[in-house]
Amino acid sequence: MPYVNIRVTDTGVTKEQKAKLIEGTTQLLFDVLNKNPAKTFVVIDEVSTDNWGVGGGQISERRKTG
Amino acid sequence: MPYVNIRVTDTGVTKEQKAKLIEGTTQLLFDVLNKNPAKTFVVIDEVSTDNWGVGGGQISERRKTG
Amino acid sequence: MPYVNIRVTDTGVTKEQKAKLIEGTTQLLFDVLNKNPAKTFVVIDEVSTDNWGVGGGQISERRKTG
Amino acid sequence: MPYVNIRVTDTGVTKEQKAKLIEGTTQLLFDVLNKNPAKTFVVIDEVSTDNWGVGGGQISERRKTG
Amino acid sequence: MPYVNIRVTDTGVTKEQKAKLIEGTTQLLFDVLNKNPAKTFVVIDEVSTDNWGVGGGQISERRKTG
Amino acid sequence: MPYVNIRVTDTGVTKEQKAKLIEGTTQLLFDVLNKNPAKTFVVIDEVSTDNWGVGGGQISERRKTG
Repeated sequence: MPYVNIRVTDTGVTKEQKAKLIEGTTQLLFDVLNKNPAKTFVVIDEVSTDNWGVGGGQISERRKTG
Repeated sequence: MPYVNIRVTDTGVTKEQKAKLIEGTTQLLFDVLNKNPAKTFVVIDEVSTDNWGVGGGQISERRKTG
Repeated sequence: MPYVNIRVTDTGVTKEQKAKLIEGTTQLLFDVLNKNPAKTFVVIDEVSTDNWGVGGGQISERRKTG
Repeated sequence: MPYVNIRVTDTGVTKEQKAKLIEGTTQLLFDVLNKNPAKTFVVIDEVSTDNWGVGGGQISERRKTG
Repeated sequence: MPYVNIRVTDTGVTKEQKAKLIEGTTQLLFDVLNKNPAKTFVVIDEVSTDNWGVGGGQISERRKTG
Repeated sequence: MPYVNIRVTDTGVTKEQKAKLIEGTTQLLFDVLNKNPAKTFVVIDEVSTDNWGVGGGQISERRKTG
């Protein structure tokens, strides 16, 4: 009965890529812990690069200067 | 001082329904644990059906084929 | 297919109280949004009062001085 | 290797304010726990005032009547 | 720079199983979104079966009667 | 009415350090967004180094070999 929350930046993740993340995570929980896929939830959050910080700065700024 | 996070799919939840979820959850925490409503936070997240998976697939796809 | 996370302080919540929180939240999501209870997850996190802050201070300290 | 999630209402937080939250939080974790800024993630979620409840009511309604 | 949170029941997950979940999730994010493993965080939360509800009841009770 | 969740490894964070994290975060939200400290929640989660992964491996293993 797992719940998985995947948070990534909102940089053009396609519907197909989301499907692959959901399928792969669900399979992994079945393979490793024998968790029933019908009871596995995967929720993807896409976060603006203005709202995600690392190294003390916004990703939106790091990508500009980097 | 509870914090409650309710995550549902973004399938047309109305402002009135959100109000009922907030009111009901706050009341429940008061009834069961005597928690002060003034210090109870309820946050509702609405998630795209492309971003929510169950059974290894996206809800957006399951609803189409189902 | 809702996921609800309830976070409260770890101040002696009994198994029966947890059952009531789970039952009540699940019922609320059915009543308000017609969500299928079989697909509603409720997860309760109990947090130490040293680890929960409000008003800039730990709850463990506020209760001592309060 | 901390992960910090800041949830606030979506009431016009500017990019500069977000930058200050990220910088300040990262600095705090370095000052208090000596955590490496390069490995500190800060994610800001902005939540609609219809979706945030306190005192059993929506913030959007409280601000109207208040 | 993904952050993944995996929540499962605390039913004897071994250190090796945790390692496989971390490795598999990190690999998946690299394969699907080309995310740098060095910047991918995976956090596993183990939740008591008294604290996890589905179908309106505690998992600890369902397993007894089931 | 902010809610802040700080997740760090459970490597001996003292009560005093937690107090500083709570105080500093609350002050930051007041300074940057003028948020009322009385309505600011800060919750610290301490996570086992077996349960936290980065670079595809557990922190507990990285520290051993590193």
